[in-house]
Amino acid sequence: MEILRDLLKENKTRILFLVADGIGGVPHPDYGNKTELEYAKTPNLDELAARSVTGLTIPVDHGITPGSGPAHLSLFGYDPVKHNIGRGVLEALGIGFKLEKNDVAIRGNFCTLGPDGLVLDRRAGRIPTEESGEIVKKLQEAIKEIDGVQIIWRPGKEHRFVLVLRGEGLSDRVVETDPQKEGKPPVEPEPLEEDARKTSEVLKKLISRAKEILKDEKKANFILLRGYAKPPELVPFPEKYGLKSLSLAYYPMYKGLTRLLGMDTPDVGDSFEDVIKAYREMGGEYDYVYLHYKDTDKAGEDGDFLKKVDRIENLDRHLPEILGLKPDVIVVTGDHSTPSLLAGHSWHPNPTILYSPHAGADDVHIYTERACKRGYLGIIPAMKLMPLALANALRLKKFGA
Amino acid sequence: MEILRDLLKENKTRILFLVADGIGGVPHPDYGNKTELEYAKTPNLDELAARSVTGLTIPVDHGITPGSGPAHLSLFGYDPVKHNIGRGVLEALGIGFKLEKNDVAIRGNFCTLGPDGLVLDRRAGRIPTEESGEIVKKLQEAIKEIDGVQIIWRPGKEHRFVLVLRGEGLSDRVVETDPQKEGKPPVEPEPLEEDARKTSEVLKKLISRAKEILKDEKKANFILLRGYAKPPELVPFPEKYGLKSLSLAYYPMYKGLTRLLGMDTPDVGDSFEDVIKAYREMGGEYDYVYLHYKDTDKAGEDGDFLKKVDRIENLDRHLPEILGLKPDVIVVTGDHSTPSLLAGHSWHPNPTILYSPHAGADDVHIYTERACKRGYLGIIPAMKLMPLALANALRLKKFGA
Repeated sequence: MEILRDLLKENKTRILFLVADGIGGVPHPDYGNKTELEYAKTPNLDELAARSVTGLTIPVDHGITPGSGPAHLSLFGYDPVKHNIGRGVLEALGIGFKLEKNDVAIRGNFCTLGPDGLVLDRRAGRIPTEESGEIVKKLQEAIKEIDGVQIIWRPGKEHRFVLVLRGEGLSDRVVETDPQKEGKPPVEPEPLEEDARKTSEVLKKLISRAKEILKDEKKANFILLRGYAKPPELVPFPEKYGLKSLSLAYYPMYKGLTRLLGMDTPDVGDSFEDVIKAYREMGGEYDYVYLHYKDTDKAGEDGDFLKKVDRIENLDRHLPEILGLKPDVIVVTGDHSTPSLLAGHSWHPNPTILYSPHAGADDVHIYTERACKRGYLGIIPAMKLMPLALANALRLKKFGA
Repeated sequence: MEILRDLLKENKTRILFLVADGIGGVPHPDYGNKTELEYAKTPNLDELAARSVTGLTIPVDHGITPGSGPAHLSLFGYDPVKHNIGRGVLEALGIGFKLEKNDVAIRGNFCTLGPDGLVLDRRAGRIPTEESGEIVKKLQEAIKEIDGVQIIWRPGKEHRFVLVLRGEGLSDRVVETDPQKEGKPPVEPEPLEEDARKTSEVLKKLISRAKEILKDEKKANFILLRGYAKPPELVPFPEKYGLKSLSLAYYPMYKGLTRLLGMDTPDVGDSFEDVIKAYREMGGEYDYVYLHYKDTDKAGEDGDFLKKVDRIENLDRHLPEILGLKPDVIVVTGDHSTPSLLAGHSWHPNPTILYSPHAGADDVHIYTERACKRGYLGIIPAMKLMPLALANALRLKKFGA
């Protein structure tokens, strides 16, 4: 879709993407072979579906279950296979860390090393978060810089932490030090390419100094590093589409992701209600708003069918308030499906509503997976939602004459 | 679809593409939320749909509104993104000019230049067509050749004209001279690449001579040039598919386009009736016939819902006569949609009928956007219609063993 950039034009229309994380599901044998959406009472979503066109969107490809990173990239119109977001970057985004362009982000684990130098426990007995937080603080005080590279330590849950290297000429092409099995020695962070030599040297010194500092810890006496990643090089979203863009989310990872994409991403609170309030206050000033609802995914991940039904009905109750701002184009969709039957992300396409006054001819009057399958949009890549939204916002010129 | 060429085989079957320009639409709130096709009475199209398979076809991509050039390329099985038809070429085709392979076609405007050398009016007060025609005649008499390059002037509507450079070693990679805003000086036609130096020199001399000739005109005292374009390099349609091909259209641009593609394109008259008569007389001698109906697009462009309904019903009335020649494969489709609600081309897919005695299993009995969505073909790129037509004509061998 490289042609899109030459076709952009500006106007006063406003686009809303309401993303209900993991909203799609599959029929559950314990609940009348209905999906969560089919079981839930959703008069407001159904009413919106009735005056919109509908379809199913595929985040990555048939049969591919995406993580939240690729699923959202696709939703925002970036090819999720071409633009991979590394684990370290996702981990940093997950704790709300603001990555800079040339940073290398790393997932760290505390581990227990035996006297023979072999890894006894890759997770240092899953030490409590408070304890590991103290150790991270100690490391940060002692190791702030190596060879001109700034070293940033951030605590995570239990044995986990995030390490960020900040400086010039860094690379993520270095061998991971986690041996992946207990009873093996840690691996040396050797360079995987010539340009990674400097990073490798910094990491070797870092590991050696950390070992010295941690030598008296009973459990967390060493560190393992993996998931090295630089932020992906992406054309910022506002530039890609010519849209002044606002992201409203209450979970850190989604905020981190949209910050990476250059959307205005204020911290507005920890609940969906906070997000809606912020939308009501600020939404009118933006061409594009991404509004994220996390609860549906959480309930699905927990394998709790009725909880997910409840969270869907909660979304439905809030819909009139959200739509009170009368955006010109409305997309309601998931990023990926999270069927409670599977208690995790899945490959199933997202039931999707696309509203505009000229969206097309559609007979679907309810918002469910089965109904959306019959919709006007058909089954399309999630990446096509942004072009469709722009077209419906009358923000695209004609291609060719 | 490069594999297609190796699979072609010949037989006596005949294929008809009946293209109703811009026939697709979207529901209109003033007319019971029906589309033009839903509002119109089309017993003959419905009868054909009932014994055919149906679907929706996408000219370029989801959300992309195509011009007539890309939309038709796609219909004829050429990738419309890869093969862009430049503005100058389309303008030349639009006045029925027969372009040759190495020509450079240019859109010209007469403009008014002030005494300070700045453009006062980019359209020379939209001088009447008759007046500008006279000026073009004068320019043609005075400037026929520059540095061995033939210069061809052709009048257009009001302030517009078409300029064609014919000769060896010409390029379309030259800076456009239209400053795009009044109060600025015209831009020099500098070369954009080394190979464009000769063309740039020719244009500079041409502009300077035209200025001298026009110096006493009150309004049209200068020219602005843009949209330089060479005809795209395309495998001729008859060769690409092994089909003796006839194009019947009553609007110049469509005739120009099919001539460019190497189809036999006679001038048969100015009305759809003329085209149908010619088809009845000549159609039997061809493997493939493209039959173009313009009225639906015109009414859509005018934003006239009832007029478009009327033009659809007019097409329907003529259908039995058209199908009297009993082609083996019939495609009825649009090139792009032109909803009267939007009063212009749009991105919505084309409702499409594909008839052959072995087209497939389909439950659709009416020809509308909503019905075609439920059809056997699904939502497919318009580029796939030619392979499907060839297959239904039994003109393709098996791929592999």
